[in-house]
Amino acid sequence: MEKKNSIEVCFSPALFDHVLTCSPFSVVVVDILRATTSICSAFENGVKQIIPVASAEEALSYKEEGYLIAAERNGIKLDFADFGNSPDNFMQESVRGKSIVYNTTNGTQTIKMVSDHKPVVIASFSNLSAVAKFLSTQKQNVVILCAGWKHKFNLEDSLFAGALTAELLNYDNMFMNCDSAQAALDLWSVAEPDPLAYIQKAMHRERLRKLKLDSILEYCFTRDTSKAVPLYNGFDIKNNLSHE
Amino acid sequence: MEKKNSIEVCFSPALFDHVLTCSPFSVVVVDILRATTSICSAFENGVKQIIPVASAEEALSYKEEGYLIAAERNGIKLDFADFGNSPDNFMQESVRGKSIVYNTTNGTQTIKMVSDHKPVVIASFSNLSAVAKFLSTQKQNVVILCAGWKHKFNLEDSLFAGALTAELLNYDNMFMNCDSAQAALDLWSVAEPDPLAYIQKAMHRERLRKLKLDSILEYCFTRDTSKAVPLYNGFDIKNNLSHE
Repeated sequence: MEKKNSIEVCFSPALFDHVLTCSPFSVVVVDILRATTSICSAFENGVKQIIPVASAEEALSYKEEGYLIAAERNGIKLDFADFGNSPDNFMQESVRGKSIVYNTTNGTQTIKMVSDHKPVVIASFSNLSAVAKFLSTQKQNVVILCAGWKHKFNLEDSLFAGALTAELLNYDNMFMNCDSAQAALDLWSVAEPDPLAYIQKAMHRERLRKLKLDSILEYCFTRDTSKAVPLYNGFDIKNNLSHE
Repeated sequence: MEKKNSIEVCFSPALFDHVLTCSPFSVVVVDILRATTSICSAFENGVKQIIPVASAEEALSYKEEGYLIAAERNGIKLDFADFGNSPDNFMQESVRGKSIVYNTTNGTQTIKMVSDHKPVVIASFSNLSAVAKFLSTQKQNVVILCAGWKHKFNLEDSLFAGALTAELLNYDNMFMNCDSAQAALDLWSVAEPDPLAYIQKAMHRERLRKLKLDSILEYCFTRDTSKAVPLYNGFDIKNNLSHE
């Protein structure tokens, strides 16, 4: 009988040290608003390579070497950067074939945190089905790591974790092994009829209002606009082309 | 206009350093299976004082001074202890008026962690309404701290956080200020029609099965069997009698 692979959800980077799943496992990094949605958008638009960096200083030193830079702090594009952290920044022909250095408040920190794992998959609603299909072929346990917000639980990443869990459970070789996967799945069941309305219910709160997301919110909750499966290898992120 | 007080939910002790709420705030400690349910049961049955201690060694030294001891490790009563960590251990006349020293794997560690805060309220489904009423009179922000399980999110404590949030929102002076309170509330909305059935859905998983909870599970999810409001003052837990 085929070995079954577990699905575990980690609601915050601060909980990653406590995951139950034994290595090796596949890690799925999620930062729906907005880093991982933007990275998927960039690859869908033909970006060749994304180099996530941990600090604005490091991004600036790449700038001096001639790289394109995407960098923000608390939602605001940094002065020296070519792009902010919004998926629509990358929906233009000029990014095709380019390398982009990426630094954000939350998402890129989370990506760099799991550089020891393999594979590390960058996921969003945009590439949900492609990611699920890729993970099902890896024959490994899966940990879905929500970037959260400043180490706190957030709704958008947790909803995505539930949506991806639901999708993975369609594959016979996957099962849930923790309460957080069950909780994410149940939250998703509440939100699924209209994820955008659900998240807008939370929009009155300070954090989401400050990000001024009106123009890209619908895109961030739209499924399967992309077949990209961006993989992080500990240095850079490239689109996995092996399945195409 | 009366100042409004916020409700924040913390799904794990590992997230407590990241709470948004500024001190001072009321802390509600929750370990439904089983420490906080058992502590409520003990006070409902007339226990005078509970002293939570961080280690089995410390509990043993109290034993030598003649105290009654409740102590378990991974769900199993320690040899030298008078009681384990089950609410039915305290449903007997012999505990009336007694002091009990308490040590558990999860719950007492979480209680001791917040000894700098005031008030620290011990809560469970047994005293849900009494706790909500008490908190509403404190005119302070509230952080609901789930003990979780070995620093991980768990369903039973998170469901309780949602049930308490729902109850607190019935008071005009309370509002939610974080995504985790919203998530707990929505999880509770899924479970509320039959919390016991909901949690039993998760019972096939290793953790709950190992605890052998069949006999006390229904009690742990029954609301308002007690009017006790146990408060921790940094040293011991006593029932708040000021409201009676």
